[in-house]
Amino acid sequence: MGNIILTGDRPTGRLHVGHYVGSLRRRVELQNCSNVDKMYVMIADTQALTDNAQNPAKIRDNVLEVALDYLACGLDPQKVTFFVQSAVPELCELTMYYMNLVTVSRLQRNPTVKNEIKLRDFETSIPAGFLNYPISQAADITAFKADIIPVGEDQLPMIEQCREIVDKFNSIYGEVLVSPTAVLPKNSVCNRLPGIDGKAKMSKSLGNCIYLADEEDVLKQKVMSMFTDPTHLKVTDPGRVEGNTVFTYLDAFAVDAHFAEYCPEYKNLEEMKEHYRRGGLGDVKVKRFLLAVLEDVLRPIREKRQQLSKNLADVYDILRSGSETAERQAAATLAQVKKAMRIDYFSDAEFLQSQQQRYNK
Amino acid sequence: MGNIILTGDRPTGRLHVGHYVGSLRRRVELQNCSNVDKMYVMIADTQALTDNAQNPAKIRDNVLEVALDYLACGLDPQKVTFFVQSAVPELCELTMYYMNLVTVSRLQRNPTVKNEIKLRDFETSIPAGFLNYPISQAADITAFKADIIPVGEDQLPMIEQCREIVDKFNSIYGEVLVSPTAVLPKNSVCNRLPGIDGKAKMSKSLGNCIYLADEEDVLKQKVMSMFTDPTHLKVTDPGRVEGNTVFTYLDAFAVDAHFAEYCPEYKNLEEMKEHYRRGGLGDVKVKRFLLAVLEDVLRPIREKRQQLSKNLADVYDILRSGSETAERQAAATLAQVKKAMRIDYFSDAEFLQSQQQRYNK
Repeated sequence: MGNIILTGDRPTGRLHVGHYVGSLRRRVELQNCSNVDKMYVMIADTQALTDNAQNPAKIRDNVLEVALDYLACGLDPQKVTFFVQSAVPELCELTMYYMNLVTVSRLQRNPTVKNEIKLRDFETSIPAGFLNYPISQAADITAFKADIIPVGEDQLPMIEQCREIVDKFNSIYGEVLVSPTAVLPKNSVCNRLPGIDGKAKMSKSLGNCIYLADEEDVLKQKVMSMFTDPTHLKVTDPGRVEGNTVFTYLDAFAVDAHFAEYCPEYKNLEEMKEHYRRGGLGDVKVKRFLLAVLEDVLRPIREKRQQLSKNLADVYDILRSGSETAERQAAATLAQVKKAMRIDYFSDAEFLQSQQQRYNK
Repeated sequence: MGNIILTGDRPTGRLHVGHYVGSLRRRVELQNCSNVDKMYVMIADTQALTDNAQNPAKIRDNVLEVALDYLACGLDPQKVTFFVQSAVPELCELTMYYMNLVTVSRLQRNPTVKNEIKLRDFETSIPAGFLNYPISQAADITAFKADIIPVGEDQLPMIEQCREIVDKFNSIYGEVLVSPTAVLPKNSVCNRLPGIDGKAKMSKSLGNCIYLADEEDVLKQKVMSMFTDPTHLKVTDPGRVEGNTVFTYLDAFAVDAHFAEYCPEYKNLEEMKEHYRRGGLGDVKVKRFLLAVLEDVLRPIREKRQQLSKNLADVYDILRSGSETAERQAAATLAQVKKAMRIDYFSDAEFLQSQQQRYNK
């Protein structure tokens, strides 16, 4: 049997190019791999609510947006099961049972959670749901018996937490759950693509994201305003490519064919970087090249997205039917879990008999 | 409309006389009250697992035991909906959504949780499920829109926590949930009946409980070994009734009719206490009277229990059908909750239309 893959995103906004190079592009490759048996892609609305409880409209308005982004990127509903987390209630049940296998101090030591708490300024007012979300993620992963989880480096502690839960569950109740393996992006620059202002994190509130849905004129304006090397003032000045956002984006997006087509004076990115380092290559020229590269990658996505958005009913139906498929699988796993825990009184033919025997003795 | 009541017990052992005077006796009265519209009695197996994850067999083996105790005490399946918590998965979903409305530090400040953590020697290794169980209780209460919760004094902070969740939910998402009121036992001695050794807590591991299922000879042996006043050595010595377990039990169980029948030289308990205080009344005589009183109360319960235990299939069917009824009610509340939170994409006829309109603009 081949691998089972689970991935997903929180529907808190449209997806951006960071999502594309960090995971979406890889998912499209994976859906076509011969050793991939099943692939689930989850729109994690329940998880998004853990730090957006006061603003459920934001989640609601982004469910179809994220689905549009998935389909526009080439994820294929014939190969991938798309589902909405809240439409699979079995995930909540699994979370409840796993919560008994993890201590509060273990959750508080989770580096991903610690970092996210810091990012969100939660301090002592962390919602319980937020502290527990690594457990909820373990439920998502194990419900589908996923063994391959493509993640960024910052998510590794979440997979570690899931493996601990699997080990503990299996050792107490018997072998039911499958332990997942994390798979990191091959290209390390794709782990976390910076915002156009050079800040490490793309964020809607900072206004520094390039969205997959951005129109060409918006894309152009964002690329032309990108952070480069602040000491590279004149074209003739030597420039730095490290920490230079335009080059970081080229690292993530440009392939040699882009040079042949849009900038034939360089064979590849290394040659272009070399010229920039020694001086004589202006930011505007590099940005125009990046714009051409991004437009090459994003145009088909944008066009497909526009096409799909004219009839959202199709997208909605894909999510609904995928959620039904996902629920059937999660229900099958939950039944195994409850059987292993021996709390399946009403579906266990032996339960009543065994209890009666204790009285007849 | 009349009141809706929710009560329940963890199935970690047979129920004892502490449960009887603390809640069961009151429940039987309540089921017959004209202003009680519905009464739900929950066998809290999911909650019991929060501190018994390693020992699910204990839970499994006590589900029908507790149901037997309920029926034996006179709770009537025609008037009461009995259900098993794990058979109502909607409770897990509600718990997940409520977890976003409570901070971790609020849970850690909950006096009941703090005390239970101390009792269980959890220190820093509290299971996450255990810390979260006040939230799970709020799900149990609100799922049935229960407005009256009969509890012991030690459970008051749990009801307070539930009221906070209801207020927060209703203020963010709109008025859906009902805020419950705690009702304490009228007789304060019934709040926490001590074990037969005089220890404040009856506990299976201490071996100091009188179970509803105890045979007459076991009951006799337990009553005759009860802790009294250790300074009351000779019959003629003056004795103390405060902290004297035999008198505490008489406070909880004896009514004037018992004196008329079993000990006519006293009109009531006050006269018997008075005699004990001034000296001249021996422990054995008081214990024999208590035994007669307890036997008067417990014999019909024991006999009914024995009768019912011959055909557990009936008890099982009551639980199954009650769990189905309970699930229908919980599902109705959950649907309202998800609608209020606006995460009901697949049952909301307007969702698709409203999202499409955003694109057609």
